[in-house]
Parts: sequence; structure tokens; C-alpha cells
Amino acid sequence: MGRASGRRGVVRVDLDAAEAGRRRVRRPDTLVAEEPLEIRVGPAGPERRRPLTVTMRTPGADLDLALGFLFTEGLIRSADDVATAQLCAGAETPNTYNVVDVTLTPGVPDPVADATRHFHTTSACGVCGKASIDAVRTRSLFDVSDDPLRVGAEVLAELPQRLRAEQRGFDRTGGLHAAGLFSSDGNLVVSREDVGRHNAVDKVVGWAVRERRLPLAGHLLLVSGRASFELTQKAWMAGVPLLAAVSAPSTLAVDVATEAGLTLVGFLRGRTMNIYTGGHRITS
Amino acid sequence: MGRASGRRGVVRVDLDAAEAGRRRVRRPDTLVAEEPLEIRVGPAGPERRRPLTVTMRTPGADLDLALGFLFTEGLIRSADDVATAQLCAGAETPNTYNVVDVTLTPGVPDPVADATRHFHTTSACGVCGKASIDAVRTRSLFDVSDDPLRVGAEVLAELPQRLRAEQRGFDRTGGLHAAGLFSSDGNLVVSREDVGRHNAVDKVVGWAVRERRLPLAGHLLLVSGRASFELTQKAWMAGVPLLAAVSAPSTLAVDVATEAGLTLVGFLRGRTMNIYTGGHRITS
Repeated sequence: MGRASGRRGVVRVDLDAAEAGRRRVRRPDTLVAEEPLEIRVGPAGPERRRPLTVTMRTPGADLDLALGFLFTEGLIRSADDVATAQLCAGAETPNTYNVVDVTLTPGVPDPVADATRHFHTTSACGVCGKASIDAVRTRSLFDVSDDPLRVGAEVLAELPQRLRAEQRGFDRTGGLHAAGLFSSDGNLVVSREDVGRHNAVDKVVGWAVRERRLPLAGHLLLVSGRASFELTQKAWMAGVPLLAAVSAPSTLAVDVATEAGLTLVGFLRGRTMNIYTGGHRITS
Repeated sequence: MGRASGRRGVVRVDLDAAEAGRRRVRRPDTLVAEEPLEIRVGPAGPERRRPLTVTMRTPGADLDLALGFLFTEGLIRSADDVATAQLCAGAETPNTYNVVDVTLTPGVPDPVADATRHFHTTSACGVCGKASIDAVRTRSLFDVSDDPLRVGAEVLAELPQRLRAEQRGFDRTGGLHAAGLFSSDGNLVVSREDVGRHNAVDKVVGWAVRERRLPLAGHLLLVSGRASFELTQKAWMAGVPLLAAVSAPSTLAVDVATEAGLTLVGFLRGRTMNIYTGGHRITS
């Protein structure tokens, strides 16, 4: 995990420093690492895997990131759909390990071919606007609406500081998002950090894919920032019945949560929170 | 701009409310609007414009967003490359205006065709890792390294609150990023808000494309959140010699700024800031 952060020189400016000589101080600073990860996918066999996407991410848990991305995009259905997944030892010097190579199990549709086909399908579609919404929506394998999860509001209020306690990267750099999966009694199951909040969630989901823990029924997912459409959809894809965010949700996040029957909590701070949907799962 | 936010019902929980009946209060809440925007591009003529990308954005300044996206991705070089750009009146009921239709000037390469070609080029490339980095890097038309901009540290320290004063959306929803373009003496030129910080920057750059203000030499760009690789690259593409962020930069943001000769400031808060690159432009 040494590559999760990097050192760079910085000039720290404090305009109110008492001594004039202390207004500008040169020192090293620890920053969150951001590097591209290319995910390549293809069927087993002699054919080369082809690039599906590039995401800017913080190195670490890259295989989980790739599996989580493929799963939340609806391109694989379980770990059984993946024959091998490996960090590609590339031709760069030094080797930056910025490629994950995924070989699919025979019979699993090649998403690179699908993505191309999908692109042309969208191109030909004459329904203005509707096509784009369909293109960004994925369909969950799981129905979370009947999930009997119940969580105490007092338990929920404790979780941000539990997640924060795991955020070693944030403490060093101030630049990392975190996602944490908790049980209904507030125990942390797994947490991941990344410069991109969608990547942090994909790393958690990819862990669950690899550990064959999907669907994540009876669990809740906490994210350190805001709750967007994308994160709400990823939670639904993973079968998580409750998504909590430290900051604000968007309109579309609330609408997707309503459609899914997923509980959405925002502004989870201190002893307060906003319950946007599915309040029956939060007991007082 | 009525669609920049939306109302949803919320249950506000305050575990420390003095009266038990006030621990859960139902009330309406104003949320930042998030909707997909599909950008369609094509040459003039009878052929239909084809989808290039879908971005999740806050409605408003959509034409600027589309122009800024096309420019910072290196797909158009100026307003002259665009014959028409219009919000598409789609077939949806009610019409959600979630498509921008861009017709290119004759002779401008069609980026949709290019994107497809590029995709296949990347597929065939055998240099592991390097290909992905090349794929996400764009080449700026402008050299910012010699920009003579000088900004006083005292002036810089004032800018976050000036930008914040413009953030009417954030005040209502708590969920919006902002980007503001300032002159060297600290006057706000233009600011834009969006649920996605890259969109807020694209909206500012798209404004500059439309107003024929590029390159943005002698200006500085302030963003309300963190400074990622992507935002730093967008600043460079627009010819801005100084990018300041209220929060942390990433390693790659610093590396791109170094390569560009662009001044990068992070953690611009109160009377303090970190200067990561190009400190000669900041006078005390």
C-alpha cells in the first residue's frame, strides 16, 4: 500500500505567522496518489484482452476495484463469471501496474464487444433524452425492497467516526474518500479508500464479489462524502438495503432509492441525520 | 435555473432533541438536482448527430457544459469549430431537455468517429499501462509556463469567501461544487456550480469558449473541492496559469501542474495555503 500516497515538496504559507520568516516554509507533504487504472476484459483464449475503461484511482485493492466495477456495471454476475484477474506487468519502466487484465469464464458475454454494440444501439435511437437515461441505468440482480434490516439511529450516528478511524489515508493526505460496509449492529465488515468515491464503493463491492458475499442483504454502506445517483445505483446493484452519506444526496439519488426501496440517509453528522427514503428501517 | 434544485420530503432526526416528539420531524428539503446530459455531436448535414458521452450534471448552463467538455477533451479548438449547439427538445413527456446537440463546422473532425477509432487504436496497443495514460491525457493548445501572472497571497486568501458568496445553490442544498474564474486582482469574472466538480469547471471553460476569451492567460481558477488530475488538465487546456483548490490535490495533479508550468495551490483556507508548484506567481 506504499503507493496509496506520495511525497511532494510544498511551500506552506501562513499569512498570520508571527515571524516574517515563518510566513513561507518549505516542507515535504504527503498527497493522495492518483493514477490511471485500465481495465481490460476478454474471453479465455489466445486473443488479447481489450481495454474496457480507464479510471483515475488510488493504487491499492485494484483487483477488487476491477471486479466491483464490472459487477456494478452489470457486466459480471458473480465471481464465477471471472476465470482470472491479474495486475498486468506492463512494459513501463518502472512498472506501474496500472492495468488489470480480466479473463472471463467461457460463455460470459464479452463486455467490450457489448459496449461497442451498445454504443451503436444508442446512436441509432431516436428517442431524445430517454436513450441517455437508459444508458446510465443498470439493472440490479437483487430486490432490496423487502430486506428486513433494522438499524438503530444511535448505532448509525456512531458509524462516521468508526469509518474515520479506519481512514489512515485521509489522515495523512486529507484527500481520500472512504466507503465502509457495516453489519446492522454497527460492526465494520470492510472499508476502502480512494481518491474517487465511486472507486471506494467499487472496491468494497469487488471485495464482496471475491468473497462471494453478494447480495449484501442485512448490511449498510456508509460513504464519506455525498450520495450521488451513481453511488445509490452501486449500492442497489450490490443488494445493500441502506446507504448512508456524511453529506448531501442529489435528487436523482433519492429517486433511485425510492424506486429500489432502499433506505437513504444523508447529512449523517454528530447526533443528527436526514432520512430521505425507507425510514422504517431506522429505529429510534 | 429552477431545475438546479428539487424538493423532496425528509425526516430530520435529532437524537438530542429535548422533547421526544421533536426527535423525528418530517419536512421538505431542497436537494441539488442531478440529471444525465447526453452530448451528441456530428457534422452539418442530414445525418443525425450521434451520442459522444453522458454526464451526470446539475441542469443549467448546459450549452456551456457541452462546449467546455468538447474543448477540454481536445475535440474542438474554438467556438469557430461549432456551427450550432442547442438543447434538444426530446420526445419525453415532460420534456427534460437532457440532450445537447452540437453541429460541427465543415472540416472539423467528427469526435464520435474519432472516439471509435481511438478505442480500436488503444485495443491494438501492446504497451501495457502506457496506452491508458496516453488515452486520458489531452494536449493543450496553450503554453502557460511563461504566463506572467502574479497574485498576492493576501488576494488569494480572500477568494474562497468570494466564490462562496456566489454559491446560491450550495447554500440551499449543501451539495454543489463551484468553480470560479478570477482576474489577478481578485475580481470574479464568472462562476458556475454543479453536482460534479469537473462539470463546474467545464461550464466555466465553455463560457470562455463561447465568449471567445481563450486562452485564459492572466487569470486564475478556484475550485471548491479537491484538485484532481482531471481538473488540473482542464485548467491547462484552457490556458489558466493558476489553479487553486480549497482542499487537497493528488500526486498526479501536482505532476501535471509541474509538467505544464502551472501554479497549483491547495488547502486554501482562512489565512493559510499550500503552494505545490509555481510559487513564483504568488507574491507576499
